[in-house]
Amino acid sequence: MLKFDEQWQLDNVNGMLSLRPEVEKIADELFDKSFDAVFFMGIGGTLASSIQVIDGTVGKSKLPFYAQSAAEYITNGNKRLTQKSVVVIASVTGTTMELIEAVKKVKEIGAKVVGFIETEDSTLAQMSDHVVSHPKNEQMKLFMLAHRLMYKNGEFEKYEQFYAELDKYLAKDLVEVEKKADEFGEKFAMEHKDDPIHYYIGAGNLWGAVYSYAMCYVEEQHWLRTKSIHAAEFLHGTLEVVDRDTNVTLFIGEDEERSLAERVARFLPKICSRYTIIDTKDYELEGISPEFRGLISYMVMHCVTQRMDAHIEKLNCHPISIRRYYRQLEY
Amino acid sequence: MLKFDEQWQLDNVNGMLSLRPEVEKIADELFDKSFDAVFFMGIGGTLASSIQVIDGTVGKSKLPFYAQSAAEYITNGNKRLTQKSVVVIASVTGTTMELIEAVKKVKEIGAKVVGFIETEDSTLAQMSDHVVSHPKNEQMKLFMLAHRLMYKNGEFEKYEQFYAELDKYLAKDLVEVEKKADEFGEKFAMEHKDDPIHYYIGAGNLWGAVYSYAMCYVEEQHWLRTKSIHAAEFLHGTLEVVDRDTNVTLFIGEDEERSLAERVARFLPKICSRYTIIDTKDYELEGISPEFRGLISYMVMHCVTQRMDAHIEKLNCHPISIRRYYRQLEY
Repeated sequence: MLKFDEQWQLDNVNGMLSLRPEVEKIADELFDKSFDAVFFMGIGGTLASSIQVIDGTVGKSKLPFYAQSAAEYITNGNKRLTQKSVVVIASVTGTTMELIEAVKKVKEIGAKVVGFIETEDSTLAQMSDHVVSHPKNEQMKLFMLAHRLMYKNGEFEKYEQFYAELDKYLAKDLVEVEKKADEFGEKFAMEHKDDPIHYYIGAGNLWGAVYSYAMCYVEEQHWLRTKSIHAAEFLHGTLEVVDRDTNVTLFIGEDEERSLAERVARFLPKICSRYTIIDTKDYELEGISPEFRGLISYMVMHCVTQRMDAHIEKLNCHPISIRRYYRQLEY
Repeated sequence: MLKFDEQWQLDNVNGMLSLRPEVEKIADELFDKSFDAVFFMGIGGTLASSIQVIDGTVGKSKLPFYAQSAAEYITNGNKRLTQKSVVVIASVTGTTMELIEAVKKVKEIGAKVVGFIETEDSTLAQMSDHVVSHPKNEQMKLFMLAHRLMYKNGEFEKYEQFYAELDKYLAKDLVEVEKKADEFGEKFAMEHKDDPIHYYIGAGNLWGAVYSYAMCYVEEQHWLRTKSIHAAEFLHGTLEVVDRDTNVTLFIGEDEERSLAERVARFLPKICSRYTIIDTKDYELEGISPEFRGLISYMVMHCVTQRMDAHIEKLNCHPISIRRYYRQLEY
């Protein structure tokens, strides 16, 4: 299989899950000291991840969780962010320009900063009050913190059971999803590698996923044009530009907003013959209770898109590591 | 001028502004009874308007204002919406399916509903605890309510001065903006009527404006493909798909996030020769204090896009009133 290192992926997911005692200690301390708000702050892909945390918790938790764009915070501010607030950031390099500026402002106000920073000793790691370092799976790390706070707040009764299942089964399950998805990934890449535009539709924790996949992978890495649209919003405008040959990909997950995506799935065949549906339900997750599957739909979907990416990269002879402009030019 | 009825527009804006005593009465009553949150709830264009209200107030107000998708509320819920909350909706027909379902759920919980419903006696008007009816300018109506609540909360000191200036000058100013923008609108339409995709970029209260313009006008009414992207997010992915001949339109407003759009304006000429910049600063607004211009950038921009729309409609021989699928098919 192209670009697939099974052992590395097993180790990575298990390594990420093994951070839990560290994350729990931070969450418990923050909860016990109390806070007036928790801002999941990011830009680009990390803003998408922050939005996923909000979409994944707003129906279950009364805790004042917010997604906040770092760039908008620098310029527009946010009156609800105070010295009693917590700001949670994530960064691979630890040098994201907008986050550095935003965290400077956050620290002037006196809020606490939790950093999931993959590069230790980077600027953002140094600026954070609490740092957790581990590569990849940024969404899961943010969710881990949010879930622990919900547990402390009496809003996640089965927290221990959920994470025990993940500890035992998740890494292996995700590897199996990738293996199963590879054939689909190749077929998708062959059919759509030359398309002038890719539409991606999703809901629930897959809304942030399609936003991020379209922008940070398909546009930034494959240099292919996209529009991502929430499943509910698709039916209020974007539907009008879809015709028989339009490339539309619908991500269906298993959380509370599944029905919004299913509605689009029922509609698409009436107007389009080149749509693709990726449903996380089609992938077995051994050892994971049905009630928890929705909580990790975004991880299952990521395994599928990794297979699409590997094949698009190869067929289009376009290495995904190169950037035309990003961090190549000043702006 | 195509599709331009000066007297109708003057009367419409002045009519909208004359709603203020009615809106103030509602806002004052809500404020005096106190609330735990105000949800500006919508879908499609009305969700965009709700987002504009949040982006336009979050830097200035501590009040718990939220933008909420009606469809996500129906499926996912929101634990922070309680019987002490206020839900603010807007609808032209008063029959928007998702809003009706959402408001049913809101009323079961016991929250108060304020409806800016253009069709009196419609379902949504009947379901609202307070109804205000007047055509068009939905964003301004929502802002009017938010601004009054901020004023009551001691967060909008110059409220009276701002609205006194609008009462006296806004209608005439907006008509003059449209007249001045008409030549540009025709030129834009001629240059871009056949483009395979239109990119629209904005920040601040123009982020909701580009989201809505792209989806509810260019896609839904002109059947042209678009992607709307926040100015800060554009630099984190979407920039990679722009080349010399890409049609990119940047909306620049005058609120706190202006610098995010200006950053894109400095960058675009390096990579693209077919970009368009529309800057609200280029339009005179007689009688409006400079400090207030940012608060109404979205209205100025709407006057400009109305001119683009009128010419695109004519040149493309595509009447904007027709829909291919929306409310034509079941879904």
